[in-house]
Amino acid sequence: MRTSIATVSLAGTLPEKLRAAAAAGFDAVEVFEPDLVTSPLRPAQVRALAADLGVRIALYQPFRDPDDVDPTRATRVRERLRRKLSVVRDLGCDLVLVCSSVHAGAVRDDDELAAQLSALADDAAAAGVRLAYEALAWGAHVSDYRHGARVVALADHPALGTCVDSFHVLSRGDDPDDIAHLDRLFFCQVADAPLLGMDVLPWSRHHRLFPGQGGFDLARFQRAVAASGYDGPVSLEVFNDLYRQADPGRTAVDALRSLRYLADRTVPGTLPAAPVPRDWAFVEVAATGAGVPDLEALLAAFGLRRSGTHRRGEVDLWTRGPVRVVVNRRSAQDRARLSSLGLEVDQPHVLAERARDLLAPLVHRPVGPGEAEIPSLVAPDGTWVQFCGTSPDWQDDFLPVPAPADSPPGPGAFTGIDHVTLTQPFAGFDAAGLFLTAVLGLEAGELSEIAAPDGLVRSRAHTSPASPVRIALNVGPTSATLRGRPLAAAHVAFATEDLFAVVEGFLAAGGRALPVPENYHDDVEARFDLDPEFAAALRRNGILYDRDAAGGEFLQFFARSVSREFFVEVVERRGGYAGFGASNTSVRLAAQRALPGGD
Amino acid sequence: MRTSIATVSLAGTLPEKLRAAAAAGFDAVEVFEPDLVTSPLRPAQVRALAADLGVRIALYQPFRDPDDVDPTRATRVRERLRRKLSVVRDLGCDLVLVCSSVHAGAVRDDDELAAQLSALADDAAAAGVRLAYEALAWGAHVSDYRHGARVVALADHPALGTCVDSFHVLSRGDDPDDIAHLDRLFFCQVADAPLLGMDVLPWSRHHRLFPGQGGFDLARFQRAVAASGYDGPVSLEVFNDLYRQADPGRTAVDALRSLRYLADRTVPGTLPAAPVPRDWAFVEVAATGAGVPDLEALLAAFGLRRSGTHRRGEVDLWTRGPVRVVVNRRSAQDRARLSSLGLEVDQPHVLAERARDLLAPLVHRPVGPGEAEIPSLVAPDGTWVQFCGTSPDWQDDFLPVPAPADSPPGPGAFTGIDHVTLTQPFAGFDAAGLFLTAVLGLEAGELSEIAAPDGLVRSRAHTSPASPVRIALNVGPTSATLRGRPLAAAHVAFATEDLFAVVEGFLAAGGRALPVPENYHDDVEARFDLDPEFAAALRRNGILYDRDAAGGEFLQFFARSVSREFFVEVVERRGGYAGFGASNTSVRLAAQRALPGGD
Repeated sequence: MRTSIATVSLAGTLPEKLRAAAAAGFDAVEVFEPDLVTSPLRPAQVRALAADLGVRIALYQPFRDPDDVDPTRATRVRERLRRKLSVVRDLGCDLVLVCSSVHAGAVRDDDELAAQLSALADDAAAAGVRLAYEALAWGAHVSDYRHGARVVALADHPALGTCVDSFHVLSRGDDPDDIAHLDRLFFCQVADAPLLGMDVLPWSRHHRLFPGQGGFDLARFQRAVAASGYDGPVSLEVFNDLYRQADPGRTAVDALRSLRYLADRTVPGTLPAAPVPRDWAFVEVAATGAGVPDLEALLAAFGLRRSGTHRRGEVDLWTRGPVRVVVNRRSAQDRARLSSLGLEVDQPHVLAERARDLLAPLVHRPVGPGEAEIPSLVAPDGTWVQFCGTSPDWQDDFLPVPAPADSPPGPGAFTGIDHVTLTQPFAGFDAAGLFLTAVLGLEAGELSEIAAPDGLVRSRAHTSPASPVRIALNVGPTSATLRGRPLAAAHVAFATEDLFAVVEGFLAAGGRALPVPENYHDDVEARFDLDPEFAAALRRNGILYDRDAAGGEFLQFFARSVSREFFVEVVERRGGYAGFGASNTSVRLAAQRALPGGD
Repeated sequence: MRTSIATVSLAGTLPEKLRAAAAAGFDAVEVFEPDLVTSPLRPAQVRALAADLGVRIALYQPFRDPDDVDPTRATRVRERLRRKLSVVRDLGCDLVLVCSSVHAGAVRDDDELAAQLSALADDAAAAGVRLAYEALAWGAHVSDYRHGARVVALADHPALGTCVDSFHVLSRGDDPDDIAHLDRLFFCQVADAPLLGMDVLPWSRHHRLFPGQGGFDLARFQRAVAASGYDGPVSLEVFNDLYRQADPGRTAVDALRSLRYLADRTVPGTLPAAPVPRDWAFVEVAATGAGVPDLEALLAAFGLRRSGTHRRGEVDLWTRGPVRVVVNRRSAQDRARLSSLGLEVDQPHVLAERARDLLAPLVHRPVGPGEAEIPSLVAPDGTWVQFCGTSPDWQDDFLPVPAPADSPPGPGAFTGIDHVTLTQPFAGFDAAGLFLTAVLGLEAGELSEIAAPDGLVRSRAHTSPASPVRIALNVGPTSATLRGRPLAAAHVAFATEDLFAVVEGFLAAGGRALPVPENYHDDVEARFDLDPEFAAALRRNGILYDRDAAGGEFLQFFARSVSREFFVEVVERRGGYAGFGASNTSVRLAAQRALPGGD
């Protein structure tokens, strides 16, 4: 698949956009006219810059309202196109996107429309340029790609073909399969979008996403495009309010990742296939200063004990049953921060290869003699993800620490790590989700919106039916320039089958619970028909409660945060509850904010 | 009108919300249940706090899904209500909002529904509480307020009445006039909203606005409420993603202003009536350091001359014909910043009284002997607005400066100040617009969205058919934590009838134009059928061009910015052009950003 991106998908000036696209590795770009019009670079200079960067200018767009029932105005359109053709040639480009008309004077007769487009194609051909006609979903007369293709067929001009754009096809609910039968497909644009119930024009102009970030079936769309014989670039045209203001270099990498992942979904096997991670190996917390004793006290109160110390020091392994927490004191700059996720993987090097093909930055830790080499990469938010195989065993890097005589096992037991939550920068939420989907094979769940004291928090869990690995992404309110600081706290949730015993042990060992408002438990008792003793136990232990429609139950306990960046939760799932207690998150956020140093 | 606000309309914790509402001057609040549930304050403590603050708790809300076809679940609903009634009594509140059901088990038979609501009302009455039943626009069975009122009438229970919410009525396009005939109206909520083409639920949950900020005819709604005999509080229930994260003290003031303005639109004469300002008196620029000579050089290049100096020094008046610019060197902290707008007003003290009733902060400058006292206030963005009458004349405060012998009048002439643009903080855009509408009597125009290199800029002009005063508000992209700095530059546009002469004089006098890309003029020539000589003159002089559908023309010239905060434009309107060249704004923004120190 040859890859392209429209300059409107990236923030910055035209040279910044070109550099970002080239640096990410795109083969080509579409030049969006306003980016050229606002640039001091002349078209020939843009052509030279693109050539220097090794990126082709595949398309110039858009040419709007190409037809008119008024002959005088139709003549003006030809003059307008002739002037644009001169710009396009100076750019070294040979293809112009022509949108179906949206104005009141749009031609309503297909034969007349074909004749006017044909006349434009004559002018284009004379300049060595071709025209790709696109049916806008809100076109005045032509709004369906099949209609657009019929007009193109009527014109039957070698310089006039069709452009399909997944948004304009799928936003209308149109069947994309007929794309396979188009015989003059000149260009293909792809964009995803969340399935929003709103007018298609503002939906298109503000909410488009990169493939895999939204709700469209783009693999089916792309298979139809491939079946047509089209072998030109597949180009991302993503109008998105956030990407317009995000770092273009980073957006371009996220964009190319989305296209490589789309290629793999279209033709499975394009990327190295790797199974979903089998389970959690560990979570690593980087701690420094006062964070170290605070973190160690927290882990100890939960009954974990220091069971190993790394051969090269400054890194300890804390365990309780299948829960393993690595405490890293090597290079942390924060009191305590969730720094790395260790995943048990069947074929770590195949997964690392897949990740590399998906533009994930691979990192190499220094490996001492006899130590396991763990393929590692950096997720978009900076968290490391490490792929742990069975041979060699990463735990062999740790020298065992004998259990102290006075280390009580403590009541309750953990059955594993239930999930991890990572907090994203405002513009990074969709890209981080795609990363989990494309690289790790997790599936994105529903979006939750949670009212916090300083604004709405959005949350989405990524899970797999084939794995207990669950990762939720959170993102805070719009802007740090308004109230409050950005949402910062990542957390790990341990799983248990007896939360009451865990909490009693934790509190008895001196652990400190996040205070839960009495009003909350009043509300729980009003909403759910609970056994009074059970309800009293929830209240006494500061345990939050949720129940799903099928009667599955969820119990949650939060320890006080070790730092603004890290806290620990313990959860108990009963009867197949599959959620994450989203309805309780506002209680947790408000309680954390109320504590000294809280958000 | 008794005033109230729902706590969900404000950011922060429940005590912060109560304090903000009380400080602004609201009579009452609605307590939104999640604000209580997440609070460590017990209901009795909230009641005591509200009493201390002198704000009444008028309503507790919402009680959802009050009816159920399943008798067991209907019994559970009664138990849920009984527990909530205990909370409501502890709050010292006697009214609960009950929303029409949205769940699958909603009762579809009106008689049965009335019977179930009546049973709930029995329980409420026993606790000394009344229930206000509200038809949600997306209710499963009851979604129309008239339907809801019919069910209430069927129940015929003294503790069961109706709540109307302008959003739920007007978002559906329902006629509000029948509210006048409701005989058991227990509560009234008002919210405005932009007229968006989207599903009503997300529209309601994210995009509500305070009255006067959106597109609903709330005066008509409110007249119907008044005609019903309702004399309870009128309460703002505004779910808005930005207000959820904005300073609650400030939001509460903006909110109460919106309600006072609504009262005046409902019953004209509630506020002191003042005519729209007659014209611009002056604009004031505060300058310091290098900003002073730069600003003076700019004004001189435009042919303004220093014609007066203030009696107490450090303030100069620069004039050319009807354009008056006050240069204030007294207390500026910026190189150059548009600090004050002087408006010619027929009855300055009446307008000031109206502004004070609308919670505008009035300010008092020290007035020296014999100087004019100018009623002044501070607009939401910090810009001063000064109301200048004819007697005494504010210009008499300036001692005349004799014209230097070598001061050339220069070619071209200004006919006045065309408009001023003020840049707003991200969450302040709608509040600033309402301020201009409510206080100054200007009318809000259409919203423009402009693609700038670092994100979308929104802009809206405020004008009046009765005055040449035009003020546009701009607001930059979402977040300063993403790319770029927030949009900062305010500007003043002078009007002329011969822009070419103005520009030639400006350049000849050493003025520096904002560079306009050649590509822009290529595009203008392609889009418009211009006389080649005229087009060449536009290009040569760096003049931007626009034309409206009726053939009206707009010519714009931008001088290089004096500071990041201030620049000057000169415009020429031909043939009744009424816009502001929004299609050219992206060119201006990109050119300003490209300059050293630019955005």
